[in-house]
Amino acid sequence: MDEHIYETVKKFISSFYRDNPFVQYLHIKVSAIEPEQVRLDIDIAHEHTNVYGIAHGGVLMTIADTAMGAACLSHNKRVVTLDCSTSFIKAIPEGQHVYAIGHVVHDGSRTMVCESDIFDEKGTLYAKAHGTFFVLKQFVGED
Amino acid sequence: MDEHIYETVKKFISSFYRDNPFVQYLHIKVSAIEPEQVRLDIDIAHEHTNVYGIAHGGVLMTIADTAMGAACLSHNKRVVTLDCSTSFIKAIPEGQHVYAIGHVVHDGSRTMVCESDIFDEKGTLYAKAHGTFFVLKQFVGED
Amino acid sequence: MDEHIYETVKKFISSFYRDNPFVQYLHIKVSAIEPEQVRLDIDIAHEHTNVYGIAHGGVLMTIADTAMGAACLSHNKRVVTLDCSTSFIKAIPEGQHVYAIGHVVHDGSRTMVCESDIFDEKGTLYAKAHGTFFVLKQFVGED
Amino acid sequence: MDEHIYETVKKFISSFYRDNPFVQYLHIKVSAIEPEQVRLDIDIAHEHTNVYGIAHGGVLMTIADTAMGAACLSHNKRVVTLDCSTSFIKAIPEGQHVYAIGHVVHDGSRTMVCESDIFDEKGTLYAKAHGTFFVLKQFVGED
Repeated sequence: MDEHIYETVKKFISSFYRDNPFVQYLHIKVSAIEPEQVRLDIDIAHEHTNVYGIAHGGVLMTIADTAMGAACLSHNKRVVTLDCSTSFIKAIPEGQHVYAIGHVVHDGSRTMVCESDIFDEKGTLYAKAHGTFFVLKQFVGED
Repeated sequence: MDEHIYETVKKFISSFYRDNPFVQYLHIKVSAIEPEQVRLDIDIAHEHTNVYGIAHGGVLMTIADTAMGAACLSHNKRVVTLDCSTSFIKAIPEGQHVYAIGHVVHDGSRTMVCESDIFDEKGTLYAKAHGTFFVLKQFVGED
Repeated sequence: MDEHIYETVKKFISSFYRDNPFVQYLHIKVSAIEPEQVRLDIDIAHEHTNVYGIAHGGVLMTIADTAMGAACLSHNKRVVTLDCSTSFIKAIPEGQHVYAIGHVVHDGSRTMVCESDIFDEKGTLYAKAHGTFFVLKQFVGED
Repeated sequence: MDEHIYETVKKFISSFYRDNPFVQYLHIKVSAIEPEQVRLDIDIAHEHTNVYGIAHGGVLMTIADTAMGAACLSHNKRVVTLDCSTSFIKAIPEGQHVYAIGHVVHDGSRTMVCESDIFDEKGTLYAKAHGTFFVLKQFVGED
């Protein structure tokens, strides 16, 4: 990808998530955008938990899906999720900070395959997702 | 299941979700609990949407996962999600009311398999999820 | 679908699987083709088993995937599988006869979502799969 | 894992797949067993193909599932597959040689999460699977 387009894509992704109501409502932050992957961060607060006092699976699936969609955007592709599948590995207690890395496994012209891992700062893996995405169009045009 | 236990299970599920911070934060309501399935309702409000003005996939995965977990509870089993996979079929615009039906496909002693469909009142299908759940223990004891 | 096209589709599906080397190699038979679903049958023979003497998961995933692809064909759509996810519910011993029903959950113009259940003649459920399919083109043309 | 147990595990895995009828029937070979991952190889022959002359999805799901089960065995755990989900990325023509690498993502006492990638010798990725496995018991005892 052209350097100029890439810079435009990065700015676009930041505003894309600043203007995303559900991502804002869950206090998810876009921390890093690289050509191959995107990082999103979240502090597990009380409103993210279930009755057991751990992060609700829906929070983890949301951040994983968002990180994968953002990874597609970092490839200059605007997509919709066709299928998202998440394996839950370890419970995340309230107060814990975690982040999701989304990266592209297959960058097809019509569909993309992505993965996302949710880690804490020590590198403990809490969940792993993969998804299939339908490519709508390029995010930033070439002209 | 014994009639008396079933009534206790129903009360337990209602309070279970009333005391579930993330389910509350997303304004998801438990509408019906039957031995075979559970229904959860949601009005897609602005905070549930993404930049396209449609329900974020994370909202749908949350309500589907919750409906499946509740269906396990309706079988008097307390579970954790091992894996949840969702197919997104149709976009849900802001302002739309939808509901998720969760039901148990396989009621094993150690693992359960569930499904959840998300419909509107006209019966249009928006998403379909399935999940594998690990059985922790009975929800309501026999004594 | 026009009656004449439907009859042509049915004949096409039969020959489609008669000429399918892997389906033949596994002795899978197409038993019924209806607009909404397709049924495939298999006798679990020694070559289908694993070291435990039960059907290898790969056999079940093969018949489920094939039944879903055939269900797409019964809608006059030629597809490729994007993603296939299978839940294994009950072991199938050598000598058991089972069949897979594939049906279409979402018949989109670009992607389709299907499900498949594997039963024995008593209706016991052994496995359940769902998949996302990419539509290549119509199977039988309108001229 | 104790060196002696590991050597026993390796021998066990080799015989495990030599005595596995479906793995034999598909001419899948166990090529390498390491503590973290297992490699299985296959030549896509005519009997592995579908009507398009490419490897049937069932062949890829079989080798992926087998590689993941073998990776669990390499951790000295005997497992059954609960759920297996595969993304198909690129068609494999008849005559192509491919291999599957299975590795363990989460080595739990009761469930394991694994992944498998299918590559050719140039490193092209054809498919990617992940699965959840239920731990039955240790493969090789400590006595």
